[in-house]
Amino acid sequence: MTAESTEPSLVTAAVLIIGNEILSGRTQDTNLAYLAKKLNEYGIQIRQARVVPDVERDIVEAVNALREHHDYVFTTGGIGPTHDDITADCIAAAFGVDLVVSPEIAAILERRPAPPEIMAARMRMARIPRGGGLIDNPLGPPGFFIGNVYVMAGIPRVMQQMVDSLAGKLRRGATVRSRSVTVYLPESQIAARLGQIQQEQPRVDLGSYPFQREGRYGTMLVMRGTDACALDATLAEVSRMIVELGGEPLDIQAD
Amino acid sequence: MTAESTEPSLVTAAVLIIGNEILSGRTQDTNLAYLAKKLNEYGIQIRQARVVPDVERDIVEAVNALREHHDYVFTTGGIGPTHDDITADCIAAAFGVDLVVSPEIAAILERRPAPPEIMAARMRMARIPRGGGLIDNPLGPPGFFIGNVYVMAGIPRVMQQMVDSLAGKLRRGATVRSRSVTVYLPESQIAARLGQIQQEQPRVDLGSYPFQREGRYGTMLVMRGTDACALDATLAEVSRMIVELGGEPLDIQAD
Repeated sequence: MTAESTEPSLVTAAVLIIGNEILSGRTQDTNLAYLAKKLNEYGIQIRQARVVPDVERDIVEAVNALREHHDYVFTTGGIGPTHDDITADCIAAAFGVDLVVSPEIAAILERRPAPPEIMAARMRMARIPRGGGLIDNPLGPPGFFIGNVYVMAGIPRVMQQMVDSLAGKLRRGATVRSRSVTVYLPESQIAARLGQIQQEQPRVDLGSYPFQREGRYGTMLVMRGTDACALDATLAEVSRMIVELGGEPLDIQAD
Repeated sequence: MTAESTEPSLVTAAVLIIGNEILSGRTQDTNLAYLAKKLNEYGIQIRQARVVPDVERDIVEAVNALREHHDYVFTTGGIGPTHDDITADCIAAAFGVDLVVSPEIAAILERRPAPPEIMAARMRMARIPRGGGLIDNPLGPPGFFIGNVYVMAGIPRVMQQMVDSLAGKLRRGATVRSRSVTVYLPESQIAARLGQIQQEQPRVDLGSYPFQREGRYGTMLVMRGTDACALDATLAEVSRMIVELGGEPLDIQAD
């Protein structure tokens, strides 16, 4: 009990990726993997991700389902100046509030002069839900947040700047650490022993990922958890198992 | 009304990606993009994707939510022989049925001799929900389906073989075609006209994707829909707009 009460609790997140281009396969998403690593540095764990099309009903439904069950929701995509950029409208609808023009974003957009029609289009990006705050973006107009929902660009280098700017501004929970080891044994050969080790180490997530490399079958074993001692103990057990099964523990990593 | 009734209707799918390694960012998912393109060849459109951890409650909840609202659900991941491969158990739980040993899969697994403990671990992969059928896999044990849920491997080259083997075995709907054109104009400059074109072409999804290349701002415009005539008309309108705005329509593509 004492150990549990002094340890930081998990802070959870969901990621909502908005965009027809991801669902059609035209664009390969890379934001989820970046977000996962960066948010873990912040002590936040992604527990679910969804990809939805540029359709209001789908976006609103997903935002409301996810924000209820996670400490944070991070969205990517749909915050540009064109008609298919409907994320701000949908977030406002999900929270039941109006969109208002953010004077800070408007001032940033007005720094670059443009004819009225172009400026009007750009001003779409100044609209944020009433009550929202801004997410800094050194590359252009800010993103925004409202409640526990953080709304960011879909373009990876812009999204990355935005999430980087959130460092220190979010509630921090436990950081998940990992250990990994590779062995050239097929999964089925280690499965029984591995299951026993997992049972003995309930605080560690022990994952097994098979691969084939240069014609040889191998398995990468990954241990994840917030308790470094439990991780090290599990790594030692897994390494002992590998040796006893006639394999060699290779490429041991810790982070 | 006549035009609509003779045209094939949309057949929809959801994709459920199962695995801690995707949510932690350790593994970059590529299955969604492959599935999107391949399923569109089959006349099936992905309307949503979810990524969930190796946690029974999360998997069961996602399967049941998605299978109710889509013609098909395709899952990837969690069908190997180790303790963290719980997809078959979760699908059975979602459908409220038992797991049974598939004699066909068992026979395939028994072709490669192994000591009893290893064979027992491998036999985990022979368990399918009662009432399910098989998905061929020339690379190893088959996947399975039950109802409208198709359960496939997470390893991309195995998943690809499985989905390729489904050619001709699924209900075919309309195929979505696309047209695209690139222009070196920023999005805000084309936004107003583009919105008008979208309004005039409600049967086409007109997407706008900004990029920066060699220091120049550009936009890729993508038209997607099932009506080739409407797509060609939209492409012509968009190209005319580009020229009128002083740009040059580049890299026009159709598929």
